[in-house]
Amino acid sequence: MIGFVVLLTVLTSGRAYIVDPGPVVKATVGEVWPRPHYQSRTDNFFLIDPKNIQITIVGHTCDTLEQAAKRYLDIISNITNQLIRHPQKELDRVPHVSRIREIALNLTTPCEHMPYLGMDERYYLAGSGRIISYSIWGILRGLETYSQLITPHKDGLLRVPDIRIRDYPRFPHRGFLLDTSRHYMSMETIYNVLDGMEYNKLNVFHWHIVDDHSFPYQSINFPELSEKGAYMPGWVYTQEDIANVIEYARLRGIRVVAEFDVPGHTRSWGQSHPEILTQCEGNYAGKMGPINPIKSTSYDFLKVLFKEVLDVFPDRYLHVGGDEVGFECWESNSQISSYVRTKGITFTDLQRIFMENVTRMITDRQAIPVVWQEAMVKDVNMPNNTVVQVWTGNWRDLLQTFTKKGHRVLMSQCWYLDHLLTGGDWLKFYRCEPHDFLGTDDQKKLVMGGEACMWSEVVNNRNVLQRIFPRVSAAAERLWSPRETTNTDNAKRRLEEHTCRMIHRGIPAQPPNGPGIC
Amino acid sequence: MIGFVVLLTVLTSGRAYIVDPGPVVKATVGEVWPRPHYQSRTDNFFLIDPKNIQITIVGHTCDTLEQAAKRYLDIISNITNQLIRHPQKELDRVPHVSRIREIALNLTTPCEHMPYLGMDERYYLAGSGRIISYSIWGILRGLETYSQLITPHKDGLLRVPDIRIRDYPRFPHRGFLLDTSRHYMSMETIYNVLDGMEYNKLNVFHWHIVDDHSFPYQSINFPELSEKGAYMPGWVYTQEDIANVIEYARLRGIRVVAEFDVPGHTRSWGQSHPEILTQCEGNYAGKMGPINPIKSTSYDFLKVLFKEVLDVFPDRYLHVGGDEVGFECWESNSQISSYVRTKGITFTDLQRIFMENVTRMITDRQAIPVVWQEAMVKDVNMPNNTVVQVWTGNWRDLLQTFTKKGHRVLMSQCWYLDHLLTGGDWLKFYRCEPHDFLGTDDQKKLVMGGEACMWSEVVNNRNVLQRIFPRVSAAAERLWSPRETTNTDNAKRRLEEHTCRMIHRGIPAQPPNGPGIC
Repeated sequence: MIGFVVLLTVLTSGRAYIVDPGPVVKATVGEVWPRPHYQSRTDNFFLIDPKNIQITIVGHTCDTLEQAAKRYLDIISNITNQLIRHPQKELDRVPHVSRIREIALNLTTPCEHMPYLGMDERYYLAGSGRIISYSIWGILRGLETYSQLITPHKDGLLRVPDIRIRDYPRFPHRGFLLDTSRHYMSMETIYNVLDGMEYNKLNVFHWHIVDDHSFPYQSINFPELSEKGAYMPGWVYTQEDIANVIEYARLRGIRVVAEFDVPGHTRSWGQSHPEILTQCEGNYAGKMGPINPIKSTSYDFLKVLFKEVLDVFPDRYLHVGGDEVGFECWESNSQISSYVRTKGITFTDLQRIFMENVTRMITDRQAIPVVWQEAMVKDVNMPNNTVVQVWTGNWRDLLQTFTKKGHRVLMSQCWYLDHLLTGGDWLKFYRCEPHDFLGTDDQKKLVMGGEACMWSEVVNNRNVLQRIFPRVSAAAERLWSPRETTNTDNAKRRLEEHTCRMIHRGIPAQPPNGPGIC
Repeated sequence: MIGFVVLLTVLTSGRAYIVDPGPVVKATVGEVWPRPHYQSRTDNFFLIDPKNIQITIVGHTCDTLEQAAKRYLDIISNITNQLIRHPQKELDRVPHVSRIREIALNLTTPCEHMPYLGMDERYYLAGSGRIISYSIWGILRGLETYSQLITPHKDGLLRVPDIRIRDYPRFPHRGFLLDTSRHYMSMETIYNVLDGMEYNKLNVFHWHIVDDHSFPYQSINFPELSEKGAYMPGWVYTQEDIANVIEYARLRGIRVVAEFDVPGHTRSWGQSHPEILTQCEGNYAGKMGPINPIKSTSYDFLKVLFKEVLDVFPDRYLHVGGDEVGFECWESNSQISSYVRTKGITFTDLQRIFMENVTRMITDRQAIPVVWQEAMVKDVNMPNNTVVQVWTGNWRDLLQTFTKKGHRVLMSQCWYLDHLLTGGDWLKFYRCEPHDFLGTDDQKKLVMGGEACMWSEVVNNRNVLQRIFPRVSAAAERLWSPRETTNTDNAKRRLEEHTCRMIHRGIPAQPPNGPGIC
């Protein structure tokens, strides 16, 4: 990044570099992103003939495992043409141990069907062609690691180091949020996102599926929501689309956590259901505000919708938003303001009561609510297991406060991918440490992980993947690798390779480090 | 942009919008970008059946014209599926005049073969299906305008307003710079850039083909320059590639102005020709600096290279750089520093003499040099017709100074596309007015136009087009349309449509205005 900053200075001030225009960051060859917890290696390599290699299953099996074996065999067979490779000299020099003809997957307990928070993702791997895990999810992570170790050798062969890796995630919730409301994202884009998440060992696809600007979720009970609230006819996610996304994610060990953000961020809901929104009056007459919190019909509607959503999305966590609730429209509405006066409560109380009601709807169905930080208003009494996602303001204070109250938390404040700086900004994301707040060990344990967020105000299907990758990789390594993984010179070189690798696999990633071949 | 700023505030501070999350900018339907000089219309429309329309040539003709007719017939036939369309109600309401079965191109003088500075781009068009120009270049611009007026009607038909347009460019040099050295850009990317330039009536492709990081130009006289200086074998532009780019551009009325930046920005040249660079000593020992200005062999080499380049690139303008020349390496070199001492001159004099020698090499071959602003050192005596490109610092002062000396100038300072802000920043580009400096009318006339610059430190083939379009459109309209075209509300709506249109034509443009359908 230093070299990079130099280049930027050049462009803005002139005469900044003289002798050396800044280095091209030299990519590593066959290093892993995110960095594994334990690895030890010799100088030897095994050779692989991509035309004569198989992935065999020697333990338990299931469709997830079989499809992963097939997927990674394709990936491995394609490595021959990869750009990043050792210099020829080095290929001639190193000793080779032997040929590998199979990569054996040893799953020691039966497959679980669906990924879930806290699933076991540990794995053990040997370069000689062994991946062992107690869990299908660990096998998936191990396959990804193994595929990253392989690089082109000479004579059309591949090679893999004589290495042993023991690895597991630091945080159980390593998420990525995609907003499909500000711009509609195609199914192809979503599948590409999930591919890229697998390559970074991310395990939660937070689907911010609807918002003010459009409502592309095709509801079973309320089909009019997307009929009138989607941007365009057909720009919807049908139940079949959603099932396909969930299945595609499941096969990659990725959970799909949906978000239906209430009571704000619901303007598009009002296209078909104006009766649940607040009709503003006075200065705002003619506009609609957040969901009307004093009408029982609002809650009746939400109960039906949330029941449906919990049936459609198998994950036990559901995000109900709660952010950015403005009071202007509630205040302007004569019924609501008279209700508040009569009851002797404040508008903040109204918000509190609304969020308490909504989160109870989720826990009543044996599910667990996730909310944005603003839902944590004064004296709020949401279910204890409610997860709070921090996205703005002083995140250290907020994590300290929320964990002190015993809530589990998710960090997103550092990882807003829609915020841009000239040039690469992944090092800023990379340096963010979610445990870097004042709190006891027990409080730290309440940090489930975090999520990088791709809000879609300024991205569409044409540039969204480019903006996500490789910037999301910074958060992915922070959430997977040991806390001590902070050597940025090394990270730069590995990310250069990882970017090349993602591009080679079809993810249109942008350059991380300035000039170069990727 | 106001609505957009509101959205950004939301994301960073919370609670910023309440009643209204900010508008989706409503795209215009059938408006032209860049805005024409004179247009008058009735409420009527002509109808076009895309299956029964032809473009006929009623005046002079040539391959440029015939290929353009074919290209635009394809574009027009594809408009049926375009997203941006009038609401159904409006389609029912408006009167139609008649069907159009042909669009007649009336070129009144014979074609010119190559585009050049000051070529005639004026045209006149009527919605009824007439495009008239004195010049092939005007016909090309008119076709682009006509194609932008056409929008989907109902029943699979298209419609075009009953409009008359008289149009011409405000500035003759409307350029776009692409850096193919920091990242190698594929031929496909370059063709896409030229397509997008045509859609924005840009007429100069400034090809910053080599720089410090790589030398992809395959030289006839010095093939070793790219053999050793390109990033990878094959990542070069062969003579055939270059001829193809020039031809593709010519057919679109776009000049190709090459840049070989000297004496700095030449590190990649040193891979094969270390003898022309300065060998640094002292603190910088082992490194190479700018071209050695006291060795006659340096000039001999450049003479041969520039002669070749002027033969390869038919345009009479050649950019020889001259920017960011640091003196540290020259100072460290004992021969150069003793030369300076002996002659009683300064290092700035050395730079001055170098640039005087190099620009004379260009004028000696009846060509015209273009240089970056730093070449204009104290007392420099470059040929009078040298063009100075301004890219950094106080551009108003610089334009004033250089035009006062009688030099023609190009503005780029406002239009650095590698500089990013969160969200759209095209309005900042749009508001930049190249005549907004203190100077006489004669000085203003020396502003030939300007260029938007896409330096490629942080863009590769995966994200470069997304970053160029539609941001470059802001500069394109500023350089083509009347100075008075400053209504940003209207520009926002037209650019929303223009972005949709470019996407529909295959340019992967990013969203200009926040949430929306494009």
